[in-house]
Amino acid sequence: MIKVAVLGATGYAGIELVRILSSHPEVSIEFLGSKSFSGQKISQVYQNFEHILDIECKEIDLDEIAKCDVAFTALPHGASKTVIPDLINRGLKVIDLSGDFRYDDIKVYEQWYKQEHSAPELLAESVYGLCELHRDKIKSARLIGNPGCYTTCSILGAAPLLAKGYAKTDNIIVDAKSGVTGAGRGLALAYHFCECTENTKAYKIATHRHTSEIEQELSKLAGENIMISFTPHLIPQKRGILSTIYINLNQKHTTEEIAELYKQYYKDEYFVRIKDAGQLPETKHVAGSNFVDIGIVVDERLNRAVIVSTIDNIFKGAAGQAVQNMNIMFGLDEKTGIDNAGFYL
Amino acid sequence: MIKVAVLGATGYAGIELVRILSSHPEVSIEFLGSKSFSGQKISQVYQNFEHILDIECKEIDLDEIAKCDVAFTALPHGASKTVIPDLINRGLKVIDLSGDFRYDDIKVYEQWYKQEHSAPELLAESVYGLCELHRDKIKSARLIGNPGCYTTCSILGAAPLLAKGYAKTDNIIVDAKSGVTGAGRGLALAYHFCECTENTKAYKIATHRHTSEIEQELSKLAGENIMISFTPHLIPQKRGILSTIYINLNQKHTTEEIAELYKQYYKDEYFVRIKDAGQLPETKHVAGSNFVDIGIVVDERLNRAVIVSTIDNIFKGAAGQAVQNMNIMFGLDEKTGIDNAGFYL
Amino acid sequence: MIKVAVLGATGYAGIELVRILSSHPEVSIEFLGSKSFSGQKISQVYQNFEHILDIECKEIDLDEIAKCDVAFTALPHGASKTVIPDLINRGLKVIDLSGDFRYDDIKVYEQWYKQEHSAPELLAESVYGLCELHRDKIKSARLIGNPGCYTTCSILGAAPLLAKGYAKTDNIIVDAKSGVTGAGRGLALAYHFCECTENTKAYKIATHRHTSEIEQELSKLAGENIMISFTPHLIPQKRGILSTIYINLNQKHTTEEIAELYKQYYKDEYFVRIKDAGQLPETKHVAGSNFVDIGIVVDERLNRAVIVSTIDNIFKGAAGQAVQNMNIMFGLDEKTGIDNAGFYL
Amino acid sequence: MIKVAVLGATGYAGIELVRILSSHPEVSIEFLGSKSFSGQKISQVYQNFEHILDIECKEIDLDEIAKCDVAFTALPHGASKTVIPDLINRGLKVIDLSGDFRYDDIKVYEQWYKQEHSAPELLAESVYGLCELHRDKIKSARLIGNPGCYTTCSILGAAPLLAKGYAKTDNIIVDAKSGVTGAGRGLALAYHFCECTENTKAYKIATHRHTSEIEQELSKLAGENIMISFTPHLIPQKRGILSTIYINLNQKHTTEEIAELYKQYYKDEYFVRIKDAGQLPETKHVAGSNFVDIGIVVDERLNRAVIVSTIDNIFKGAAGQAVQNMNIMFGLDEKTGIDNAGFYL
Repeated sequence: MIKVAVLGATGYAGIELVRILSSHPEVSIEFLGSKSFSGQKISQVYQNFEHILDIECKEIDLDEIAKCDVAFTALPHGASKTVIPDLINRGLKVIDLSGDFRYDDIKVYEQWYKQEHSAPELLAESVYGLCELHRDKIKSARLIGNPGCYTTCSILGAAPLLAKGYAKTDNIIVDAKSGVTGAGRGLALAYHFCECTENTKAYKIATHRHTSEIEQELSKLAGENIMISFTPHLIPQKRGILSTIYINLNQKHTTEEIAELYKQYYKDEYFVRIKDAGQLPETKHVAGSNFVDIGIVVDERLNRAVIVSTIDNIFKGAAGQAVQNMNIMFGLDEKTGIDNAGFYL
Repeated sequence: MIKVAVLGATGYAGIELVRILSSHPEVSIEFLGSKSFSGQKISQVYQNFEHILDIECKEIDLDEIAKCDVAFTALPHGASKTVIPDLINRGLKVIDLSGDFRYDDIKVYEQWYKQEHSAPELLAESVYGLCELHRDKIKSARLIGNPGCYTTCSILGAAPLLAKGYAKTDNIIVDAKSGVTGAGRGLALAYHFCECTENTKAYKIATHRHTSEIEQELSKLAGENIMISFTPHLIPQKRGILSTIYINLNQKHTTEEIAELYKQYYKDEYFVRIKDAGQLPETKHVAGSNFVDIGIVVDERLNRAVIVSTIDNIFKGAAGQAVQNMNIMFGLDEKTGIDNAGFYL
Repeated sequence: MIKVAVLGATGYAGIELVRILSSHPEVSIEFLGSKSFSGQKISQVYQNFEHILDIECKEIDLDEIAKCDVAFTALPHGASKTVIPDLINRGLKVIDLSGDFRYDDIKVYEQWYKQEHSAPELLAESVYGLCELHRDKIKSARLIGNPGCYTTCSILGAAPLLAKGYAKTDNIIVDAKSGVTGAGRGLALAYHFCECTENTKAYKIATHRHTSEIEQELSKLAGENIMISFTPHLIPQKRGILSTIYINLNQKHTTEEIAELYKQYYKDEYFVRIKDAGQLPETKHVAGSNFVDIGIVVDERLNRAVIVSTIDNIFKGAAGQAVQNMNIMFGLDEKTGIDNAGFYL
Repeated sequence: MIKVAVLGATGYAGIELVRILSSHPEVSIEFLGSKSFSGQKISQVYQNFEHILDIECKEIDLDEIAKCDVAFTALPHGASKTVIPDLINRGLKVIDLSGDFRYDDIKVYEQWYKQEHSAPELLAESVYGLCELHRDKIKSARLIGNPGCYTTCSILGAAPLLAKGYAKTDNIIVDAKSGVTGAGRGLALAYHFCECTENTKAYKIATHRHTSEIEQELSKLAGENIMISFTPHLIPQKRGILSTIYINLNQKHTTEEIAELYKQYYKDEYFVRIKDAGQLPETKHVAGSNFVDIGIVVDERLNRAVIVSTIDNIFKGAAGQAVQNMNIMFGLDEKTGIDNAGFYL
C-alpha cells in the first residue's frame, strides 16, 4: 500500500482527492493536513465521509508526514513552497496542485504570478504533470506540478492540431466556462449562492494565470512561441469545464478528417474520448470522472476548427489527474482507482 | 462473477444501477434491456459510459436473459408484471424496482394502484427489500420488491420510535422533499428545466402511493394499524430526498435520549448514520451513496420528536438498495460495490 | 410624492425594497443607508440599477433622513433599535423589517431573541404589519413591525381555520421551505454556491424565532394559547417560501368546503389567491410578486387539512409587504407599485 | 390605449410579452392566441397571472384580432407566415418574433432556414427591429422582424468597432452562452431538468441560423461582406445570454480608448450600458430588464478586443425589444413600460 498525505485536505480539490483516494485499492491515507479544521475529524468537516474515513485533520507536522510515500499538496498558491522542499528532502514524492511547479521558465512564473519563486532549483527539477503529454518524465519524477483545470482541458483540446502542424498559430482563442468548485471553498461575495445561481460572467480576461500555462505547452507542441486569447467564465454549476477553442487551419480539412486526426493522436489514451463527427461533448458526460471528452467541428466557410473540450475541473482538472500522476510515479496501472464512469446525474 | 441483466436500463433508476454495477467487483453485466433505445450502445445513450461499458441495449429477450443469475427490473409500474413470472420460472432471481411486489396485502396494492394485480401468487412469495428491516427474508428470496425512494427514507427515519413503543401513533406526519430524478426521465412539462428550477411545490397530497408502503411497514413495526399524513414535494435538485417526520412521544424524552435510542437500534447497520444531538443531516452528505442519515430533535415544549431522514433517492432509494439486496441474496458482503463516500460536490 | 429613506439598502431585503420603490409612482427615494458600501453609488453595488437609480449610499445621517416622510429599516436584528426611536421623534413613520417590533408581549421577544428590548415603550405602540390581518391599525401607525417571511406565509395559510373555529389546536405543524435570499447577503460557508446547490436541509428545528411570531398571531386568531411545531428548511433556489401546514379538523369536512371557507375569508384580499380544490400553488407562481397563493387538501382518512401556502420571501415576505404597509399608512391604494404578476420565468 | 393581440401567448417569449404588456400603461391586451391552450384562461396556464389578467386563450380568429392596433406574433418559425399577410392587409401593425422577416436578402433566409419564403413581398417591406440600429425605419414600419436573442446581444456588442472602422474583419468570433428559456417551452429530453442542470454544452456549431443574422448586420455596419464564427452554448440558468466577442483591432488601442468609443457610439441609447474599463457585465445585472450591458478588454499583447455583451434573452432578446419596437412605432416614449431595473435576485 502506498502511504499518502493530503495537505490542504479540506478545500475542494483536497476533499476530492480524499474521496478518490478513500476507494483507491493501493492507497492508505495516513495524514490529512488542514489549517482551518485541525483537530476535527474529516468526517465532521465533510459528513459524507462518516463510516468511510475517520481520520483527524491536523496542522502540518513534517515528522509525521515523513512516514508517507507521497504527499499531495493542495495548499494556497505560495504556501506550498515552504513545505515542499522539506518533504522532498525527506524522500517523499510530492504532487503539488498549486501553480508553483508548472513552469519551464521561472520568468514566466514570476511575470504571471507577480512574485519571486522561492525554490528555483526545485522548479528546474519538477515535471509538469499533464499525464497524456509527459508520461515518461512523470514516471521518474520526485516533484509534480499538477496542471491547472482550465489548462488540462484546453491543452488537450488543442494539442493534436499544434503537434501535427495543422494550425495557424496567430489566432488561437480559448473561451472557457467553469463550474464554481474551481473557485475553491473560500468565502467571497461572488460565490454566495444568490450571486452565482442564474448568473454567468467572464472574469480576468487576458490576465488569468492559466493563460501562461496553456501557452507554454502549446508552444512546445508547435515548436514555436504561441500567444493565445484565454477567457474564463463562471457558470452556475458545481463541476465541469468546457473549453471552446478556435483554431484556423493552414489548409482545407473536413470535420471527419480532423476527428480522425484526434482519434489517431489519442489512440492509446484511455482517458481521452474523441467524439465522432456530428457529436459534441457535455460537462455531464465527464462530471465525476477522469475523462476528457473532445468534439470537433470544422467550419468550412472559414477553414476554422472549433474544438470543444470538457473535463470535470476538480477531477481530471485537479484531484483525479493528481492520482493519475501518482499511479504513474508508483508503477501502478494508470487507471487504478479512477476508472469509473461519470455521474451524469 | 454474478451475471446480471438490467431491464429498463436507460431510465434514471436503471442507469444508476448500470453505473453502480459497472464498478461492482463481483458482477458481470450481461444484458441491458431498453425499449426506447434498443439497438444503441449504452455508451451512446449515456455518453459517460464511453470506454467503461459498450454493451448494446436490446428489446427484452427472455432466452438471452435466462443466462443471467439475476435480473433487475426497472420497468414502468405494471410492465414488469408480465416479464417477471417468466424470469422466475427460468430460475433467475429478480429484484423489481416497481411497486408491484412491495405489498403484504394484495388489497392494499389494488386500492392504491387502481388496478388488479397480475401475479398474486408471486406477490405472496415476494419479499419487501428494505434491507435493514428484512435482511433475513431477503437472503433466501427469489423475488424482491425493492422499496420506493420516499418509503426507504421515511420508514427508516421512523422505525425506532415505533418498534420500541415510544410513539403515539395517531398524528404521524411525513413531509418529504425530493429531487427531480425521482420523477424519472419521461418527458412532461413539469420537468422542463425552466419549470423546475427556482421552484418548489407539493403534489399528490394524501394520495401518493408511497403512503401505503410507509403505512404497511410502520404498522408492522408498531404492531397496530397506522395511518399517516404523507406529503411529497418536488425541489430543484437532481438527487436527494429529505423526510421531516413528526411523531408525538408517549412520554417525556430529551433529544439525547432519542438519539441514543436510534444509535442502539441501528448499531449494526453500516448504511445508517445517526447524528449526534445538535447535528442535522443534509442531502449533500448522502448524494451518490447508499447511506441513510438521520437527525433528531425533541421539541420538549410539545413532547414531539422531529426526525430528519435523508437518502439519495436513486441510490439508496432505488439502485443502491437493489444492489444491496443482490449482495445479501448472493451471500456477498452487503457493502460490496456500494461502500463509497457520497459526492458532496 | 412620498419621500423615503431605506436604511440597510444593500442587503437583500433592502435592495428588493429599492427595486420596488424605484418604480413606485408615488415615491421619491431620497436616502439610501449602507454601512458596508457607504460612498458608493447604489448602481455600482447592484449594477442592475445603472441608468435607473444613481443615488450614493451613505452612513446613517439622521438630519438628512429627517427630511423624509418614511424610513424603511432593514438593519440587522438589534441595530435598528437605536435608530428607530430617533426617527419616530423626528416625525417620520418607520417600517422596520427586523424582529424588534413584531411582538405584543415583550417577554416573548426577550425569550426568543435572548436579549433585552431597548425600546419597550415603542414596542407597546408598534403595529404588527401583516396587512391582511391588521389593516385598520396599520392605517394610523407610526411604527410598523414588518412581519417575517416564514410568518407571513404560515399565518395567512392557517388563519381561516383558526379564526373560524375549524381547527383542533394541539397538533399544528408548519413545515416550511425557503430559498436562500432569506438568509441574507452575509458571508457564511453554508451559503457558498457549492454548499447550497443540489442540497436541502432543515435547521433550527423547534428553536427558530419565527415560531413565536406565528404562535402569537395564531393564538390571537383562535382566542387561545397555541403552540406549534415549526421546521424551516433551506432549498436550492433564490426566491420563495412554501409552508406545508397540517391542522386536524374538529369535524368532518371536504376539500371543497375548506377551500370555500378560505375563499370567503379572503374574498376582499387582492393579494391572497385561493386555489380551487385539485390545484396546488408553486413558488414560481408568486416569485417576484406580492401574492400569497394557498391550496388546500383535506385528507378525509385522517380528518386533517393539509394547507400549502407560498409567497416570495423577499417580496411579500419582506420588501413588498413593507411597501404595502406604506401604501396603507399614506392612504394610497394598497396595490400601488406592487400590482405586478410574478416572474414565473 | 393601444389594443394588442399576442399570438403564441403561452410559449416563453409570448408569456414574457404578456407579462410586460400587462403593466404597460398605454396598452390594452385584447387577444391572446394559443393553439395548445385555447379555451383556458391565461391565469390557469400561467398561474402567476391570477388577479392580474384573466383573458381566455383562443385559437387564432382573424376577425377578432382585426380589432387590434398591433399583433405580436410569437409563433413557431414558419407558422407565422400564413397569418401575417392577413393581419397586414387588415391594417394592423405586426411585430413578428420568428426569423421570417429579419432578412434583407431572401436567398440568405432560404439558405439558412432550408425552406422557401412564403411572403417575399412582405419580406421586402419588413424592417429589422434592432431598435438601436434601425430606429428611423421602425417608426414608419408596418411589419417588424424582431431580432433573435443571440443576434441582439452579439450585434450590439460588436457594432461600434465595425461601424467605426476599428476592426479587422476576418477573424471575428462570437462565443455565446444562453439560458434555457431560449429553447422555448417545447418538450425535449435535452431540456429535462435533470439533463440541463449542472450541465453546459455547445450546439449547432457553425450552423446556427442566428449566424446569418449577425453577419447581415455586421456586414452592413462595416460596409463589407463579413463571415464570423458563432458558437451557441446552453448553460444551466433560465434567463440570460452572454456573448464573448473576439475582434482583432487594425491598430493599437487601449481598453480605455475602446470603452470610450463605445460610450460615444451609444451615448444616446438608454438601454445600452457600457462598463468602465476594469468592469465586466454579468447576466444577473440585466435579467428581467431591457438593458444591454457591454464590457471591453483590449488584450494588448495580441491587439485584440474582447467584448462581453449580455442581455436577458427573453426580455431584450425577445419580448422587451418587441415592446420597444411597438413604442417606437406608436410614437410613445421608447422606454414606456420597459423602464425597470433587472431582478438581480
